Amino acid sequence: MLHILLSGLDLGGTFVFAISGALLAVRHRLDVFGVIVLSFAAGNAGGITRDLLIGSIPPAAVADWRYVAVSAVAGLMTFLWHPAANRFRNDVLWCDAVGLAFFAVAGTQKALLHAVHPAMAALLGMLTGIGGGMARDVLVRRIPTVLRADVYALAALAGAAVVSVAHVLDLSAFAATLVGGALCFALRFGAIHYGWRLPAARPSEPPPASDR
Amino acid sequence: MLHILLSGLDLGGTFVFAISGALLAVRHRLDVFGVIVLSFAAGNAGGITRDLLIGSIPPAAVADWRYVAVSAVAGLMTFLWHPAANRFRNDVLWCDAVGLAFFAVAGTQKALLHAVHPAMAALLGMLTGIGGGMARDVLVRRIPTVLRADVYALAALAGAAVVSVAHVLDLSAFAATLVGGALCFALRFGAIHYGWRLPAARPSEPPPASDR
Amino acid sequence: MLHILLSGLDLGGTFVFAISGALLAVRHRLDVFGVIVLSFAAGNAGGITRDLLIGSIPPAAVADWRYVAVSAVAGLMTFLWHPAANRFRNDVLWCDAVGLAFFAVAGTQKALLHAVHPAMAALLGMLTGIGGGMARDVLVRRIPTVLRADVYALAALAGAAVVSVAHVLDLSAFAATLVGGALCFALRFGAIHYGWRLPAARPSEPPPASDR
Repeated sequence: MLHILLSGLDLGGTFVFAISGALLAVRHRLDVFGVIVLSFAAGNAGGITRDLLIGSIPPAAVADWRYVAVSAVAGLMTFLWHPAANRFRNDVLWCDAVGLAFFAVAGTQKALLHAVHPAMAALLGMLTGIGGGMARDVLVRRIPTVLRADVYALAALAGAAVVSVAHVLDLSAFAATLVGGALCFALRFGAIHYGWRLPAARPSEPPPASDR
Repeated sequence: MLHILLSGLDLGGTFVFAISGALLAVRHRLDVFGVIVLSFAAGNAGGITRDLLIGSIPPAAVADWRYVAVSAVAGLMTFLWHPAANRFRNDVLWCDAVGLAFFAVAGTQKALLHAVHPAMAALLGMLTGIGGGMARDVLVRRIPTVLRADVYALAALAGAAVVSVAHVLDLSAFAATLVGGALCFALRFGAIHYGWRLPAARPSEPPPASDR
Repeated sequence: MLHILLSGLDLGGTFVFAISGALLAVRHRLDVFGVIVLSFAAGNAGGITRDLLIGSIPPAAVADWRYVAVSAVAGLMTFLWHPAANRFRNDVLWCDAVGLAFFAVAGTQKALLHAVHPAMAALLGMLTGIGGGMARDVLVRRIPTVLRADVYALAALAGAAVVSVAHVLDLSAFAATLVGGALCFALRFGAIHYGWRLPAARPSEPPPASDR
């Protein structure tokens, strides 16, 4: 039961992150294959990094064909219907928040299953959530969302921490996964909708205009 | 026999990609050590990623000194003779196409030898081909060639697929490697020489001028 | 004894590189969590890459909580005291040189302990030193320091080579670690203070203004 939930969350997260990568690719006018490559990078970079770090080799994205298939379908769908996808960009922002929540809790559970220390498992869950967006943005030369967006890595870490704490207290993993995912989504919802933000540094000197 | 062919293709691909990295480094006026670092990244990032993903650890680029040597020689040669290399830039474009073909088929064969599913092996072959250029371009802040160039990842995938299909049908691996490599090169030749291209997205809104 | 020295060098290098990442994050006006994420990337990317390449999985940064703690503390300290940190930017440049020296020798020793060939161990030590800065700079869209700075990768390689040569000659690892680290720092000191530099390429054509 938990296994099915985790699989669904992982593939669902791959799907929505792949869509986010495809949309960015379309806006950069890439050809159809470039769209699919960026979809795959966005949907799978976080999970692949997590799997390498916990020693689950080959990573799920290589061992299980469904990850590639889900990424390619998301990329193709977005390429074919991009005007619609462009129009509903806000829906995509919500999808991204859902993907972050899915990956954060599923990544933490997977790390716990590999006997990683609970505190580190929560950090690896956060990394799973933020990794895909980092790869996607670096490839098209954007400063990654996680470094710019409000309450992004923190939301992922909060959701992941719920799963880890429940594991330590021996509470239901199933319930913790749902609660943690909901918490992560709620924090991102608040950040997007109500403008919640963390304190930022205000350096005394002007920012580097041309940071060569 | 196949073993020697694969070794030659892998080292040959490393050499020409290392030259492409060195040329880019020279154009950015890097010092001689920066040139060699970028040569190494361009020549080996694809193969290292593939080896990590299939669990062949340590990767060939670490276990076999010839990869480092070939990359360093390519970087030094380019640094010393860069005016000539600059003048013959089109030759380099052709070398790059050769490297892509070498890596795509050699990478697929290596993945098949590690008992990876044939479909995934073809994708890993493609990744081997495109990975070096991705690392190279990200390091000097270019949008990677694979995302911009015409029929690039697709050419690599087509060549890789020939190797995988031959493996499933139990045909000669030696012949498949040659045919697959030739197909990949031919597709890139057509894209460069005749301007073949895949359909690209034409988003309804203007592209992001400053995509912060 | 050597074990304690290496642990100290590795954590010390993590600390000063994390500070360099945090300072860059503050200059880009990231929020407090973005600062910590960049601190972690700068402090640990080199060591994680080394550990993956030598098959030491999970990497130390995942298996040992102190790496995360040291990175987070460095990030938070810098965030809270950034005006001071900004004012003493030159001190930071020196810290970076110390971190490079720490990582180069500690990374080489770790690779030697994993029975890597001494020549490759020196290259992996160099990679440990330059990897953190590469990840940090790519994430905020700078061309990595190692590609621009004077006598940077070469300094790391020189320090790492001392450790490897001492290993081959069966000399004291403890002394070699100190001498190698001092050599690396001295080379960077000379580069920063006296402007030592390697020959750079002067391509016949103008540099790519907009290298699309």
